[in-house]
This record gives sequence, C-alpha cells and structure tokens, in this order.
Amino acid sequence: MAKDFTSRAEDYSQWYNELVVKADLADHSAVRGCMVIKPYGYAIWEKMQKELDRMFKETGHVNAYFPLFIPKSYLSKEADHVEGFAKECAVVTHYRLKNAEDGSGVVVDPDAKLEEELIVRPTSETIIWNTYKGWIQSYRDLPILVNQWANVVRWEMRTRLFLRTAEFLWQEGHTAHATQEEAVEETRKMLDVYAEFAENFMAIPVVKGVKTASERFAGALDTYCIEALMQDGKALQAGTSHFLGQNFAKAFDVKYATKEGGNEYVWATSWGVSTRLMGALIMTHSDDDGLVLPPNLAPTQVVIVPIYKSEEELAKISAQALKMKSELEAKGISVKFDDRDTHKPGFKFAEYEFKGVPVRIAIGPRDMENGTVEVARRDTKEKEILQQGDLANKVEHLLENIQKNLYQKALDFRDEMTQQVDSWDEFKDVLENKGGFILAHWDGTAETEEKIKQETKATIRCIPLNNKQEAGKCVYTGNPSTQRVIFAKAY
Amino acid sequence: MAKDFTSRAEDYSQWYNELVVKADLADHSAVRGCMVIKPYGYAIWEKMQKELDRMFKETGHVNAYFPLFIPKSYLSKEADHVEGFAKECAVVTHYRLKNAEDGSGVVVDPDAKLEEELIVRPTSETIIWNTYKGWIQSYRDLPILVNQWANVVRWEMRTRLFLRTAEFLWQEGHTAHATQEEAVEETRKMLDVYAEFAENFMAIPVVKGVKTASERFAGALDTYCIEALMQDGKALQAGTSHFLGQNFAKAFDVKYATKEGGNEYVWATSWGVSTRLMGALIMTHSDDDGLVLPPNLAPTQVVIVPIYKSEEELAKISAQALKMKSELEAKGISVKFDDRDTHKPGFKFAEYEFKGVPVRIAIGPRDMENGTVEVARRDTKEKEILQQGDLANKVEHLLENIQKNLYQKALDFRDEMTQQVDSWDEFKDVLENKGGFILAHWDGTAETEEKIKQETKATIRCIPLNNKQEAGKCVYTGNPSTQRVIFAKAY
Repeated sequence: MAKDFTSRAEDYSQWYNELVVKADLADHSAVRGCMVIKPYGYAIWEKMQKELDRMFKETGHVNAYFPLFIPKSYLSKEADHVEGFAKECAVVTHYRLKNAEDGSGVVVDPDAKLEEELIVRPTSETIIWNTYKGWIQSYRDLPILVNQWANVVRWEMRTRLFLRTAEFLWQEGHTAHATQEEAVEETRKMLDVYAEFAENFMAIPVVKGVKTASERFAGALDTYCIEALMQDGKALQAGTSHFLGQNFAKAFDVKYATKEGGNEYVWATSWGVSTRLMGALIMTHSDDDGLVLPPNLAPTQVVIVPIYKSEEELAKISAQALKMKSELEAKGISVKFDDRDTHKPGFKFAEYEFKGVPVRIAIGPRDMENGTVEVARRDTKEKEILQQGDLANKVEHLLENIQKNLYQKALDFRDEMTQQVDSWDEFKDVLENKGGFILAHWDGTAETEEKIKQETKATIRCIPLNNKQEAGKCVYTGNPSTQRVIFAKAY
Repeated sequence: MAKDFTSRAEDYSQWYNELVVKADLADHSAVRGCMVIKPYGYAIWEKMQKELDRMFKETGHVNAYFPLFIPKSYLSKEADHVEGFAKECAVVTHYRLKNAEDGSGVVVDPDAKLEEELIVRPTSETIIWNTYKGWIQSYRDLPILVNQWANVVRWEMRTRLFLRTAEFLWQEGHTAHATQEEAVEETRKMLDVYAEFAENFMAIPVVKGVKTASERFAGALDTYCIEALMQDGKALQAGTSHFLGQNFAKAFDVKYATKEGGNEYVWATSWGVSTRLMGALIMTHSDDDGLVLPPNLAPTQVVIVPIYKSEEELAKISAQALKMKSELEAKGISVKFDDRDTHKPGFKFAEYEFKGVPVRIAIGPRDMENGTVEVARRDTKEKEILQQGDLANKVEHLLENIQKNLYQKALDFRDEMTQQVDSWDEFKDVLENKGGFILAHWDGTAETEEKIKQETKATIRCIPLNNKQEAGKCVYTGNPSTQRVIFAKAY
C-alpha cells in the first residue's frame, strides 16, 4: 500500500495529495475545483457532524434549512460582505436548456434568462437575515439560535482536496440576540465548542484567538478563530465564530420591540466549520505509512485479521474472532472482522495501516493454542501479545490511550514549533528554516501587517484570547507594542 | 391558534398551505420556488433522515458526497435523461461578479464566463456514473452500494411548500452491480425499505407498484414506486426506486472484468425520497385543528403543562412535573415541560394541539391533591385522568397506541376510497365526485393512458406488485386487458 507513496520529508504537499486519494478519502471530480467525498472520508465527516450536532443542540441550538440561492441584490446589501464574496461566486443566469438547432446537443435557452441573477450561496448571512426579518417582532422572539448543515460554493482559483474546494460542506450557525453582550457571549461560547471538539475529538490542540481587522470575515465586527499547526509548520484556521454587531440587522432592517417599549436593531453572530477540518485531521496525525486517525473519529476502530492455512483453522479462528468482536461491540467499539479470502494477511495489514485504523488484532493458530492475540496500535506501531480473556477492557483502554497520545504528540510538536522572536532577521530566519507559530510584537497597524505579509507570506493568525500584555517593540517597525501576536504561514 | 385557519372541507389546498406555515414547518423564501424549512419542520425531517439512514446502513449501504454541479455535456450523455431534466434546470454560466461602472451595485462580470455551463444537479446519475468509471475495474469492485444526502434543484413552474419546490432535500442511492438479477433485487429491496419506513414510521399505508413506461424516471428501464392516498382523495408518490439497466454504464462507458475473463457493462439502480415526504405526512394525518404527528416522528412526543395560580403552586407542580419528565425520558420519550409564565394554559393547549404534539399532560392543584394528571391524546382528542404513579408505562403504551391508530385510520380511509370501476361513465363519476384509487382495466397502451389523462387528469399511479391477473376490458377503449391498474389524480 505504502509503496509509490511520497514521504513528508520528500514533499509534504505531494504527500498530502496522495494520501487523500490513496486512503480513499476523496477524489477530484470532473467539475473544476469540486471534490467527490468517498465513503471512507464521508464516514469520518459523519462522525464529526454527529458530535458537533450534539454539542450544538446541547448549547440550545436547533437546525433549519435556507435556500441554496441568494438573489444578487441581497448579497449587495451589506457593503463589506459583497466586497468579500462577489469575486468568487457561481452565478445562475438561466433556468432552462433546449436542444441545439444543429442537433449537436443541448444549449442554454436564451429565452429562459432570469430577471435577477442568483448566486449559489458562499455563506448565508444575507438570505437568513432577510428571513429573520419575518421571524422577529419583539424581544419575546429572541434569541434565535439556528444552525444549518449545508453545501456552499466559493469559486477559488487554486483548490486542494478538503483544504480549499469550490464546493464544500459545512455548518453555519446564525443567531439573533437582543443585546450586544448576549451576542458576544454566544460568539465566544461557540468558539469554545469548536476548541473543545478539536481537542477532544480530533486530538488537535488549537489556539483560541481573535483576528486582526484585515483578516476578519466580510461583514463582521470581530472574528474569533481556532488555529492549529500542521506538521510542515504551517498554520490552519480550523473554525471561526463571528460577532456581526448590527450590520446585517441594519442591511435587512431587522428590529425588535424591546421590553421597555423601544425599537432596536437586532445583534447577530455566525460561526462555522467545514470539511476543511478533514484536511486538518489528516495533516496533524498522519505519517509516511499513511493515515493515522484518532479513535474518536475512526469509522473502524479495531480490525481483526485471521491468519490461517486451512479452512478448518479459519473456522476455529472465526468463532473466536466473532466472539471478541461482539465483546468489543458491546462496549461501543466499532470492529471489522476481515475474513476475505482474496487477500493475504500482509496485504490487509498494510491496507489498514494505510487507512489509519487505530488498533489491529491478528489471530492465528498459535494464538488459538495459547489463548492469545497480537495487538498492534497504529500510532506508535507497537505490538503486544494479549490474553483473549480480558481483551475488550484492554482494547478499550488502548483506544483511550491512543486518543490521548495523539493529542499529546501534536501538542508537544506545537510547543516545540512555537517560538518567541524579537528581531526581524530572526523572524525571517525562523519562518524560512523552521516554520511554526512565531510570537512577535506588532505595532497594531494594518500597514505593517500587510508589509510583513508581502515580504514573507506570513500572516497574523490571531491575537490569542487572554493574551499576556507586555511592553515591546514591533518586530518589523520597532514601534511600541503592548502584546505579542501569532504569525505563521498558513493554509 | 386554530382561528383564522381554513378547514379541509372549505378548501383543502388552502388548509394545507396555511397549516405548513402556521405550524412553523416551512415558509416561502425570497427566492422563487425555494422554501425555508423552519426548525420545527426540520426537526421532523431529521427524524426521518435518522431512521432512513439507519435502514440504508443496515442493508449494507454507505454514504458519500458528489458535486453539486454537473457539466452540461454530462447531462446529455443519456438521451432520455437529458430530455427529462433539461427543461427545468438552474444553469451556472459565470463565476464572478464585479462592481457596476455606474456605481449601482454588482453585476455579472462578462469576462468570467464559463467555457462549459454547469447545471445545478436535478439528480446525480450522470456525475456519479462518471465517477464510478474510475472506481470500477473488476467484479471485485462490485457491488457499489452508495447513498447521498443532498439538495437538488428542478426549476418547477408551479411550486408548493414541501410538495413541489425548486430546491428540495433528498437522499439518492446509486448502486452498481455485476448482474441484472442483482440490480433488480436491489431496486426491489429499497422499495421495501421505503414502504416499511412509510408504514411503520410515518403511519402511512402505501401501495407498492411499478410505473407505466410513460411515468418512468428519465433513463430507467423500470421505475418502482410507493403510492399513498391523501385525505382529499388524491394520490401522492412517496418514493421511487429505479432499475436503470446498463443505460448509464453505456453512457459513461463503465465496464468491469468478469470472473470469467470477460468485459461487461455494469448494471445500475437509483432510488430516492425527499422532503416531499413532509407533505405526505402532513396531509395524511392532520385535521381542522392543525397538525397531527405520529409519535415516531414527533420532535416532542409529550408536553407537560402546569396549571397554577400562585408561585407556590407552580413550585410544587414543577417538582412533580420534572419527576414525570425524567421518568418518561428514561423510556426514550421526548418531553417538554412548558412552564412559561408569559402564556396561559389555554393558549398552550391550543398551540400544542396545532403543532400536533401526540400527548399532552396537564397538572393542576387538584391533581396534586389527588395524585393524578389529565392526559389528552392529539389524534382522537380523548382525555383521561391517570394516576401519577404508573404514568410512564401508561404514556409509553399510549404513544404506541396513537402510532397504530393513525396508521389504521389512514388504512381504513384508503380502503374506503379504493374502488373497482368497470365503465367509463363510472370512472369519470368516481373521479369527479369521490376521488381516491380507482382500480380499472387498461389496454396497456400509452395512447389510452394519455387520452385518459387528457380527459380526466387521472394518471396510472402504478401497476401493483403481485397484481391479480384477471381478464377484462379496458375501461376506456373496451380492448382486452389482463389486469386492473390504479388510476388517480395525483400531487
């Protein structure tokens, strides 16, 4: 399996591209920039969805569904918003095809031109706030805590599977509140939900922070984010939560009657994570032998492979394997018993290793004699011989252990790759030769931020929440600064 | 709640339209023909999805995701298919907007015209079979049993919430098989899954049958369907399962190496149900007082309403109500305790009645003295006084009973509205004055089918599976016929 597979050291980018396709996670489609999410990849996404959905509902949110299309004029109602999205959107102009007169196939029917073009949603603030106008009259109608699972389209010019695709899947929360305080609290609460999910389920440590003005969502007053660090030292923005102020309420004239008899604009938030998380998951844990999945998100957590020569041996081993399978399943562990006779054990070992199955159990004739099995963990490649008797408990603990180990390993890596830098030469040197998160003083101006970006491609990933305040000098201009921010090259 | 609400007898169509909006299920959007599915409606759809998804997985299927867009040329590769869908599709022609030169807003950027137009998927056979070409080489790669949950767009001219919308949500299964027999078996198996779901979860009796040639899915060799009967005597096609033969394999050149060393085209099926099921659910059970939901699909199965005058009374009642709530929840029943002080009990009663909550429990000071509660069921409006002691078991049985009763009621209605008809005059009379399913002989020709449709708007809903064979004369032409088929006006 792992032959013809580029290593990370050889070419990290190529390693990722090959891994996604060879591990059956996703594939390119015939449509420029759009991906096919294959069953194995989709099964991981489903596990993410299920857990996130549970967390959203636990924090009081409900799901709804809004139209795929947005009238062009709606997109224009919030000035920054249209500026941010107009340059990369799919535009529907007609609603019918017809047979070509020369018999060459079908062509767009010019008689079926729409009066107003429709944009395939790049995000849904505008269509949703136009809808909220009808839902909100008084303070009694607030808050509205709605989430939507949907596909969105942004016509990116350079695409990569999961990381940046023209169409992607995501969830977008859109909430409406009576007060600014409540909206800010919601924005922060959902950031916490994302961070908790990333750390506990994806085993990815993240920094919670706030974006600088130039990195904000188009239409937001504040964009909060979680930032993760990939193995090549580049940052990846894994989720964002936006405090939208009254921008969209004003654009769509959404006011509410207050308890005191007044009439005020409504406060808004929006927040989202997408199939981009799949990219983060893959790049954080995987290695030169293929995918490594944290047990909490692995579609198959344990695979049992029988090793046998005769049908008779297989029959005996199968009986024992199926018994172990049901004991493991009784603990909520997902198990596959792979008794295919079309492939040898060695092939199967390589396949499951490449697909990142956390635990592999092998059982052969000698194991049957000794009442043992061989248990191999994917993350460290360690193997041990265990008694069949207490296997389920042992494997359960092993899975917990793997989950923790992956997180710790990613955390150690990030710590090692996070560096305080105080001079411009060092900044460039670290960025060039090491990568990672650079903690440096910045004078707080968009000009400096832009110049650094132009010169080095590094961007300010975020200003960490609860950031330590300390007097210093901007690493670029030498002007005074009150805190360090995180710079990095990013996906 | 139910005031200003049209009754079924007054205007069935209006009753439906008002019910969908007033019960907070869905709403019209600013985009022509596209709906907003509101949280209460979406919660029902989520319950449908969850159960269907479980059934699909239990029958060996996995989920995946394919692109929203289909290149125009792909749609044309299967001749019948393009004929069926080209006339009602949303066409993406450009990928960018720009600021208008006169400053009036944004306009489509003419420089950003796509070389080939993209169609927003009306169904995904073409893009999926183009993808399967890369997945299938040999018999070892078969069968492929994939399902997709997605949004699709068909540019319908006349739309109605849930029943016929330009964009709707659905699932579409697309399977690939080595043999014709296996593909036909799959088609029938999924029809059975749909029928089981409709009857056991939606409490809707359905007829399983096969469509006539003129009612087939565009590109199918056979279309199987489940047909339900609404309260106004009109039929509703609730799900379809298509045997596609080798049509799409041929259109996209998908062959596989057989075990015997040959090279054959692959056999295909596709099958789907959509948010249209919401329409069927609403129309089958609801009444002049609002929505009636079968317990298996009700987001809230039981609501507890406290009746009190003082804060002190409320405190006592709340303690008891919360105890009952947790006892019910321990049985997997979803319960809402509505202690809002902004609304009177009468208002709450009317609200939950209108929203179709299957069981309402009221508890007041006298109940507290007597150790009782008042339990009202939504379907029959019957009330009874029950002891608080054994309430959870009683309510559990009551919910089962309501589920069964709704099904039986719908079945009785359908039986009553199913009539054998042997003359053309009677046919027209029954159709005009009674409606329902008409079992009549048909000579088997598309011409007769079309003439009947033109004269009466009745269509052949299906030829029931395992249909009784009997010699007869076509109700329209008098020509010989071997079996009765089901005619009805339909949604």
